[in-house]
Amino acid sequence: MDMTQYLLAHPQTLIPLTLFSEEYGSAKSSISEDLSIIKEAFESQGVGVLKTVAGAAGGVKYIPQMNEAQALGFMQMLIEHLEKPERLLPGGYLYMSDILGNPATLTQIGKLFATAFVDKDVEIVMTVETKGIPLAYATASYLNVPVVIVRRDNKVTEGSVVSINYVSGSSKRIQTMSLARRALPEHSRVLIVDDFMKAGGTVRGMIDLLQEFQATVVGCGVMVETADVSERLVDEYISLAKLNDVDVKGKQIELELGSYFTKQ
Amino acid sequence: MDMTQYLLAHPQTLIPLTLFSEEYGSAKSSISEDLSIIKEAFESQGVGVLKTVAGAAGGVKYIPQMNEAQALGFMQMLIEHLEKPERLLPGGYLYMSDILGNPATLTQIGKLFATAFVDKDVEIVMTVETKGIPLAYATASYLNVPVVIVRRDNKVTEGSVVSINYVSGSSKRIQTMSLARRALPEHSRVLIVDDFMKAGGTVRGMIDLLQEFQATVVGCGVMVETADVSERLVDEYISLAKLNDVDVKGKQIELELGSYFTKQ
Repeated sequence: MDMTQYLLAHPQTLIPLTLFSEEYGSAKSSISEDLSIIKEAFESQGVGVLKTVAGAAGGVKYIPQMNEAQALGFMQMLIEHLEKPERLLPGGYLYMSDILGNPATLTQIGKLFATAFVDKDVEIVMTVETKGIPLAYATASYLNVPVVIVRRDNKVTEGSVVSINYVSGSSKRIQTMSLARRALPEHSRVLIVDDFMKAGGTVRGMIDLLQEFQATVVGCGVMVETADVSERLVDEYISLAKLNDVDVKGKQIELELGSYFTKQ
Repeated sequence: MDMTQYLLAHPQTLIPLTLFSEEYGSAKSSISEDLSIIKEAFESQGVGVLKTVAGAAGGVKYIPQMNEAQALGFMQMLIEHLEKPERLLPGGYLYMSDILGNPATLTQIGKLFATAFVDKDVEIVMTVETKGIPLAYATASYLNVPVVIVRRDNKVTEGSVVSINYVSGSSKRIQTMSLARRALPEHSRVLIVDDFMKAGGTVRGMIDLLQEFQATVVGCGVMVETADVSERLVDEYISLAKLNDVDVKGKQIELELGSYFTKQ
C-alpha cells in the first residue's frame, strides 16, 4: 500500500528499489513481486505505466498516462459540458471558469496533456496569466517539472524582466507580456499550455518571448481552439477540443474533439 | 493497491464499500480488512486519516492530513529556502515564483492549508490573481472543492461581474477587483488563500467583495506575512511563515514560523 502511495506522489522519478527495501524492511525479491502487482493494477485501471530500470543505478519510475478509452470518454463528457448554451459570452467566447476551477477536472486535463507530451523531455511548463495557470500546474505535476507564468503587464516586481510586445491575433491590439529573467534558465525545453486559442497571438507571443531565453518549445497544448480562423499564427500545437460553431443569436455551441484525437 | 489509488484520487469523498466490493469482486469483510491495513499505513506515513462511516449510507472517506512533525519539518525547510539573500526584491518583497512554481512544494503547502481548515466545511477556495492561484488549487484539491479567482481589473469577459474598489494597505493606492456573478453561488462558505500579506489590503478587499455574494469567510490562509505592519486590515488569518526582518542593504532576510504554528 505504501509503495502505491509513494509512487503516485512521485511521478516521473526514478526510485531505487533500495529505498523501498530499507523503508519497509523487506527483501528485494518481495519488493519486485509487489511492484509487478502494482504495475498490473496501474495498467488495468489506466493510472499509468511502471517502468523498471535494471542495474545498480536502476529502480522504478511511475509514468502517469491516460489510456485512449479514458481520454476519449473524458473529453466527450467535457465537450457535452462545454456545449451548454449558458456558457456563451459576448465575442464568441465561452465561460469556462467553472471547469478551470474544478480540481478533479483539471487533474484529468493535466494528465491528458502529460500523456500527449510524455516523450518530449519537457523541463518547464509555461503559460500566461490568468486562466491557463491551473492547467499548467495540473500538467506540470504529472510531468514533475516546474511552472513559469508569463505576466500580461510589465509592472512585475521580480527583478529584471524581459518584456515583448505582441499583437493579439483576434483583436489586433498591441499588448505586452513579461517574464522575470531569473524565472527561466536559458536553453530550457518548454511546453506551452493555455486554455483557449483563437488566432494564436498569445501563444505566438510566448514563443517569441522564449527566444529571448534561448529556450526550445517542445510542444504546445490548448484546451479549446476555435475552428473559424483565417490565419493561424502558430503551426504546431495540439488541442483537446475544437469550437466549431457559435450561434450567438440561437444560443447554440458546437464542439468536436481536437487535433490530439483526430491527428493520431 | 487499487483501493489506495482510488482513495488518494478522491479525497474528502464518502465512498460506499459496495463500490470496492463490486469493482474488485471481493467480500465486504475482506474489503474492511484491506481498509484497516491502508488506514494504518496512511496514519503511520502521515498521508492522512481514513474515516469509516457505518450503516447503509456509510462508507469510507480519506481526509488528507499532515501531521505536526511533517508540517514543522516542511516549513523549516521552506523557511531556510526563503531566507536566501538573492530573493530580496525592491520594496522588501521576496522573490517566491520559483517556490510557487514547484508542484511538489505546492502540494505540501496545499496539504498544510487543507489540514488547517479541515473542520471549517469549506465549500470554495478563493484567491486573487496571479501568484496565489497555484496555492489555491493545491489547497482545493485536498479539500475537494472548486476554486474561484478574483481578477485585478474589471475588463473581465465573463458576463455580469461584481467589482469593488479597495485600498492597497501598503501602497495606499486605490485598486479594483472583480468577480463574475456566476462564479460564486450566494451564501457559499469560502476559504481565502494568498501567497503574501503585508497590511492585508488585498485580503480585506476579497472579504468585502464576498459580502456582495452573501458569502461566509470561514478562514484565511497566507503563506508568508510580514511582521512590521503598523495596522493590519484583517483580523483572523493564519500564516505559515512570518517575514521578520529584511535588511535590504545587508541582504539579510529573516523568517520564522507563522501563526499556524505559534498559536496552536
